[in-house]
Amino acid sequence: MSRTRVHNFSVSLDGFATGEGLSIEEPFGHAGHRLHEWFTTTRAFRAMQGAPGGSMGVDNAYAAQHGPGIGAEIMGAGKFGPPGWQDDDDWTGWWGPNPPFHTPTFVLTHRPRPSLEMEGGTTFHFLDATPADALATAREAAEGQDVRIGGGPSMVRDFLAAGLIDHLHVVIVPILLGRGVRLWDGLEALEQDYQVESVSTPSGVTHLTFSR
Amino acid sequence: MSRTRVHNFSVSLDGFATGEGLSIEEPFGHAGHRLHEWFTTTRAFRAMQGAPGGSMGVDNAYAAQHGPGIGAEIMGAGKFGPPGWQDDDDWTGWWGPNPPFHTPTFVLTHRPRPSLEMEGGTTFHFLDATPADALATAREAAEGQDVRIGGGPSMVRDFLAAGLIDHLHVVIVPILLGRGVRLWDGLEALEQDYQVESVSTPSGVTHLTFSR
Repeated sequence: MSRTRVHNFSVSLDGFATGEGLSIEEPFGHAGHRLHEWFTTTRAFRAMQGAPGGSMGVDNAYAAQHGPGIGAEIMGAGKFGPPGWQDDDDWTGWWGPNPPFHTPTFVLTHRPRPSLEMEGGTTFHFLDATPADALATAREAAEGQDVRIGGGPSMVRDFLAAGLIDHLHVVIVPILLGRGVRLWDGLEALEQDYQVESVSTPSGVTHLTFSR
Repeated sequence: MSRTRVHNFSVSLDGFATGEGLSIEEPFGHAGHRLHEWFTTTRAFRAMQGAPGGSMGVDNAYAAQHGPGIGAEIMGAGKFGPPGWQDDDDWTGWWGPNPPFHTPTFVLTHRPRPSLEMEGGTTFHFLDATPADALATAREAAEGQDVRIGGGPSMVRDFLAAGLIDHLHVVIVPILLGRGVRLWDGLEALEQDYQVESVSTPSGVTHLTFSR
């Protein structure tokens, strides 16, 4: 059965998944790259970039779950580009000609545009839809495989609140951002619907999985 | 040298150290006892209650750091009693005739009252003072030993913001409270002043220590 999964979703100790002041130069605002260092140093991430090397411990074991079994991704408008990308007809995402998705990829936006076929199997489709409707569309495109919910924090929260997520992998990075966009707001008692597991790793982060 | 320490301070995954709706029946509001189950099942906690048994693993090893080397505690008004205790001249705290502090214990309140000498070495003193002034008073009373900052969340946050804490032990409990009083607000970049360590334990919680 096709499941809905979130992977490698990093938050600060105070719960922010992105900082303040997002721009084309600073995709995560004042958070910089600090939330994702545990990930970008793994072998799994480096392999996605076509680079050799990288860590092969437990952080890598989690990181490597990102791709296998995924047939489509849904992402929020805030992940696809910096604020205002909807006004730029030439914007094709952050990732160059060959994005690391390699599946149909649905971008939630109130201003849809024509689909974009990229290299490597990624096609961006633009949807103005509720989480449940977007998931139905993505699931069909996934042809029986799982659907990844790609972030940012507001849309992950919306999908969680709607009860649509089957597997949530969150990584707590021990920094205090103080401001930005929170993941956990409005999700009281979420844990009651899941089996929860925590493990801290030598890099200093803590991996949390919520599974059902 | 005398240090200032916080121990066994539990927060939910969304950062709340206490729930909403605090009362004499529900000291932690809708959080109930869920934030403290990891602690109350340890041998160290049970020994403080004069009870036998309890777990002896890593949760207990952390729990047992609470007492040794402490010469005084400072707590916030919200820890000493339920909302409105200041109007009850007979209120002597939650803990009965022999409270588990066994040292001079300073209660921060805008409405000080005469000191209360309890059994077992605990004397409650009531102070209307800034964090720095309260710490100076408590440190003198501690006679060279360390001072414990006992909570609740607002006063721990105030002491952290004032740079007064040398050792912070926070326990992340994987539940989502959704509402209550947060620990981490307004502490951006706190980690830069500390060495930070995280460890998840078989009970499902994650212990974080900030030390300098």
